[in-house]
Amino acid sequence: MELLSKNICFDGEQRIYQLQSTHLKGLTKFSAYIPPQALKGQKCPALFYLAGLTCTEETFIIKAHAQRLASQLGLILIAPDTSPRGENVAQGDSWDLGQGAGFYLNATQAPWAEHFQMESFITNELYPLVIKALAIQSDAIGIFGHSMGGHGALTLAWKYPNLFKSVSAFAPICAPSDCPWGEKAFSNYLGNDQPEWAQHDATQLLLSKGQLFDEVLIDQGIQDQFYSQLHPEKYQQACDQVGQKLTLRFHEGYDHGYYFIQSFIDDHLQFHALQLTK
Amino acid sequence: MELLSKNICFDGEQRIYQLQSTHLKGLTKFSAYIPPQALKGQKCPALFYLAGLTCTEETFIIKAHAQRLASQLGLILIAPDTSPRGENVAQGDSWDLGQGAGFYLNATQAPWAEHFQMESFITNELYPLVIKALAIQSDAIGIFGHSMGGHGALTLAWKYPNLFKSVSAFAPICAPSDCPWGEKAFSNYLGNDQPEWAQHDATQLLLSKGQLFDEVLIDQGIQDQFYSQLHPEKYQQACDQVGQKLTLRFHEGYDHGYYFIQSFIDDHLQFHALQLTK
Repeated sequence: MELLSKNICFDGEQRIYQLQSTHLKGLTKFSAYIPPQALKGQKCPALFYLAGLTCTEETFIIKAHAQRLASQLGLILIAPDTSPRGENVAQGDSWDLGQGAGFYLNATQAPWAEHFQMESFITNELYPLVIKALAIQSDAIGIFGHSMGGHGALTLAWKYPNLFKSVSAFAPICAPSDCPWGEKAFSNYLGNDQPEWAQHDATQLLLSKGQLFDEVLIDQGIQDQFYSQLHPEKYQQACDQVGQKLTLRFHEGYDHGYYFIQSFIDDHLQFHALQLTK
Repeated sequence: MELLSKNICFDGEQRIYQLQSTHLKGLTKFSAYIPPQALKGQKCPALFYLAGLTCTEETFIIKAHAQRLASQLGLILIAPDTSPRGENVAQGDSWDLGQGAGFYLNATQAPWAEHFQMESFITNELYPLVIKALAIQSDAIGIFGHSMGGHGALTLAWKYPNLFKSVSAFAPICAPSDCPWGEKAFSNYLGNDQPEWAQHDATQLLLSKGQLFDEVLIDQGIQDQFYSQLHPEKYQQACDQVGQKLTLRFHEGYDHGYYFIQSFIDDHLQFHALQLTK
């Protein structure tokens, strides 16, 4: 784990690290905001943030405007890249497949399976690594994300409820089995085995595994240009069906981008801080 | 003035406009954050933000994290591009000259003089245009900026005190006549006429024109990688000499970038809001 950059920010440190990943079979980067409390040696709660299509480990730390409140609340923020990258890593025909579009699952199909193992990378490699290297309170870790990363947050939380104590999302892809982005990614990465798809679909995972968290927070812009890909109402129905408490907020005028995310980022940090310090 | 994009942000609107500029002889862009108060028709104070070398009209709105408090305070934020641009606009040999490096002055030398007229563009063209087009309270306009844009803010404030009621800067180039960036820009744009340079040097302008503002706020990182280009101590000495009140804050650990700026942006917005509503 090599420190590539470090910038003081709200008396904490915004860092970018690089590591040689076993699961991704190559170099990968992640960012870590370390609040001042952690710099002084205090163990702090941590949040994993999973970004959307085309993003990198830098998108969140530049565009989401989370450091101010994370500094106040004493939250560590970890943001991985959105896929494996490199010359020897397979690339798709467009920005919604391949590099920048890892979908936070383990691919089983060629040519993707060799490097596209984001689920194992995050849960088996990055997660223990940052607990060991940073001042993280290991029983107080949450996960959130945006769009493809909202899908990632909701699915990883339901697959690994022992790892994540709180979960929220901005404009998540709630039912990837039923939208063009998800169908393209799943058919490429997982093949056409529909029962396998269900293991990586937030709505179907919720229906099969039931209620697992005290509360889930989702924010959704009504003028989201990708609204038809997201299906928040399906996730709401599934929550109602299994008795999972969901706070799903619709926001008039807001779209899919980071001007929307920054407007509600403080609410998400507060939500997680409350859940993680219960 | 054509609206290129509009995103709802903290119940206001983050807009980007394009216009055909008479002074720049070409198309140019600027961004405007319109807080919710202004959207409802209330006249609001406004701030011009001038960005540094290599930046565009988008840098501030993505990286400075100003919208949250601007929304609360009801401040309109205007950020022009940092130079004329285009295929027929002269380019320098490096990122510190030519496109992206307009230095907020009017060039007198070939090949720069034809398009590089940022001083006139901002004060004679953009300023009256936004007052006419947006809900700006025309007697409550301030100016601030970063690095080359800090130089721009301090010099335009002293050249046009009738236009700007408040001024502040992040890591400004305080004495461009005495640093490599400034010497390169001034000799190219203005020629080797040293008395002319003095008209565009914040420290020399202050010494010649004297105290003009109730207070100036400057924030400076002590670990700024470009510290030797900036000379805040010369500006401090000139302020002391002419009796200009200056709050110059040095910050341990902080560098030259936007992680520094975002950490203190709220203080600058509060500073201007207080000055502009006096």
